[in-house]
Amino acid sequence: LGPTEDDLTKEAVALAAGRELVLDEGLVQELRRRFRGHRPASPEVIRDLARLPRGCRTIANPVGAAVGLDLELEGSRIFVLPGVPREMEAIFTQGVEPMLRRLGSREFTKTLVLRTVGIRESDLALKLRAVRPALEVRLGYLPLTTGVDIRLSLDASDEGEASGRLEAAAERIAPVLGRHLYSRRGQELHAVVGSMLMARGLTIGVAESCTGGLIGHLLTQVPGISACLELDVVAYSNRSKVESLGVDENLISAQGAVSSQVAQAMARGVRERACTRLGLSTTGIAGPSGGSAGKPVGLVYVGLAHSGGCRVTENIFGGDRETIKLRAAIHALDLVRHHMLEGRDQVGKDKGLHSGSDQR
Amino acid sequence: LGPTEDDLTKEAVALAAGRELVLDEGLVQELRRRFRGHRPASPEVIRDLARLPRGCRTIANPVGAAVGLDLELEGSRIFVLPGVPREMEAIFTQGVEPMLRRLGSREFTKTLVLRTVGIRESDLALKLRAVRPALEVRLGYLPLTTGVDIRLSLDASDEGEASGRLEAAAERIAPVLGRHLYSRRGQELHAVVGSMLMARGLTIGVAESCTGGLIGHLLTQVPGISACLELDVVAYSNRSKVESLGVDENLISAQGAVSSQVAQAMARGVRERACTRLGLSTTGIAGPSGGSAGKPVGLVYVGLAHSGGCRVTENIFGGDRETIKLRAAIHALDLVRHHMLEGRDQVGKDKGLHSGSDQR
Repeated sequence: LGPTEDDLTKEAVALAAGRELVLDEGLVQELRRRFRGHRPASPEVIRDLARLPRGCRTIANPVGAAVGLDLELEGSRIFVLPGVPREMEAIFTQGVEPMLRRLGSREFTKTLVLRTVGIRESDLALKLRAVRPALEVRLGYLPLTTGVDIRLSLDASDEGEASGRLEAAAERIAPVLGRHLYSRRGQELHAVVGSMLMARGLTIGVAESCTGGLIGHLLTQVPGISACLELDVVAYSNRSKVESLGVDENLISAQGAVSSQVAQAMARGVRERACTRLGLSTTGIAGPSGGSAGKPVGLVYVGLAHSGGCRVTENIFGGDRETIKLRAAIHALDLVRHHMLEGRDQVGKDKGLHSGSDQR
Repeated sequence: LGPTEDDLTKEAVALAAGRELVLDEGLVQELRRRFRGHRPASPEVIRDLARLPRGCRTIANPVGAAVGLDLELEGSRIFVLPGVPREMEAIFTQGVEPMLRRLGSREFTKTLVLRTVGIRESDLALKLRAVRPALEVRLGYLPLTTGVDIRLSLDASDEGEASGRLEAAAERIAPVLGRHLYSRRGQELHAVVGSMLMARGLTIGVAESCTGGLIGHLLTQVPGISACLELDVVAYSNRSKVESLGVDENLISAQGAVSSQVAQAMARGVRERACTRLGLSTTGIAGPSGGSAGKPVGLVYVGLAHSGGCRVTENIFGGDRETIKLRAAIHALDLVRHHMLEGRDQVGKDKGLHSGSDQR
């Protein structure tokens, strides 16, 4: 629906419907108003955007220039939407879906998604075997790089009843999933962890090596996280680990930058420098090169320093560089979530400084 | 094709083809070998994965457990692939596409993508008007959040001739696009910037506020970037801007953290602390809250400190929090690319330290 030569949909629809393309003067005025200011559009572009099949209705585009179209042809209703995903989504949600609900039958499919992390699809299916017969819903598994979504769905004609049945099924499943379940409302893991940090008033500092800023990027997708995220140091070189995080140079020489000891020193270092309640660190080999027999590509240590000590996990993640980074970042965020679920860092309930470590 | 109850494709194919599902003992052995070690699969899972319609061929899955299937039905060839995108892609590329090339007609569609940044789709189309008639290819525009891709395509039966014609069209278009064109081979902007930094032996330090680690994340997607990226400080709080980057507290009070002056101080600060040739910074308002009449949501300052001074750009990016962060990070990387294209920071050709600033 755009103004360029490969945008042929309006022409195709006009041809199919046997209508001409005509200039919509009202739309011309509206587009002129919108494209005043610092990014003006040329008259040709506006003219191309405002040529519509005669007699069709327009559907407002809240995020872009190309309006959607709505017309009837031989008893069918045709909706025409732009192809840019965020524009298509916005017009569909605001303009088309409500219309379809009025037009369509009363039967619809209602879904509820349970998001899990840290467990394989096949292991989830085994866990759910015992409760499966009692569930009067369809069950779908969607394995993602970051975890597995379980989609519950059913066909219904009553919104409230459908929600009730899905919630009842979720209630039966939730105890089986335990702490692998992190959201029943389609939230991302970083959003859940961000909300938990904010609700608890916990501050955090991050020290990233192999994840390269991804943990910071994910946490800062969450509006309001500035109240919790004090500092994230992406210490990609050994020198920056020493200078910006206070990691002992000799420790790096003795153990290697990718080691449990350095992960711990990074987590403790950023916690101290940022003066935060939690210090989170990653160090690993994202590949494709840099691996060895003893320290293969995918080896990642994650550290979490807190008032009671420092926990370090050793992991081997599969996949390419991008996948290993993402899996490491997700695991790190999940470690913070588990720590909060264990209730060990409640503000005002500090157990005092322990020098002990629960490294494992 | 997976082992869970919602994976019904093998059953459906077996039904359609009138064949039974039988256990492939060879596949059982192979899966047992693969799932030995630290993540063993249960016998049930292996059995489910190894039940295949009788007489079909398997297509190896290089990245997952579910093999692809290949069978004939009434003179048609059916390929069955798993739905996990990276598995589907890997099997298709390695196992199916070569087979299709042998099976199919000699006619195919060949494409070449020119990737641009910093220019709108409609402005691109206007620029290309003059050369358009001479291009004997189809032209498609794909607007992304990060820029606009121009897709050149044609139908052909000879690989070499098709490539030659596409390259000739690209040669005509490239001068019109100028520095907006950053890749002819489908590379991402961060990969191009990373390669340029490495080729020039330039080191860089990054100081991120509103982008929250995204610049570091993008740069560290590039294998080998550790030779150039020394340090990335995500200084989300004012205190961390002062303590970790040496920004003057009074400057923040007087100008606000989101200001041209603070962007400059952050870029200079990280360049100095990381001892790098370049210092890149971002400070802005990603929203949804925190905006004001004078400093609206989407206002982002980007600073680039180099041996000749410091450049700062003022930008207003549209979209939600995620989009603003991404647009700011892309613009920052593009500023580094432009700086390198201008040849102002060649190693060994340092023009000496100027205290002047080309702030604009």
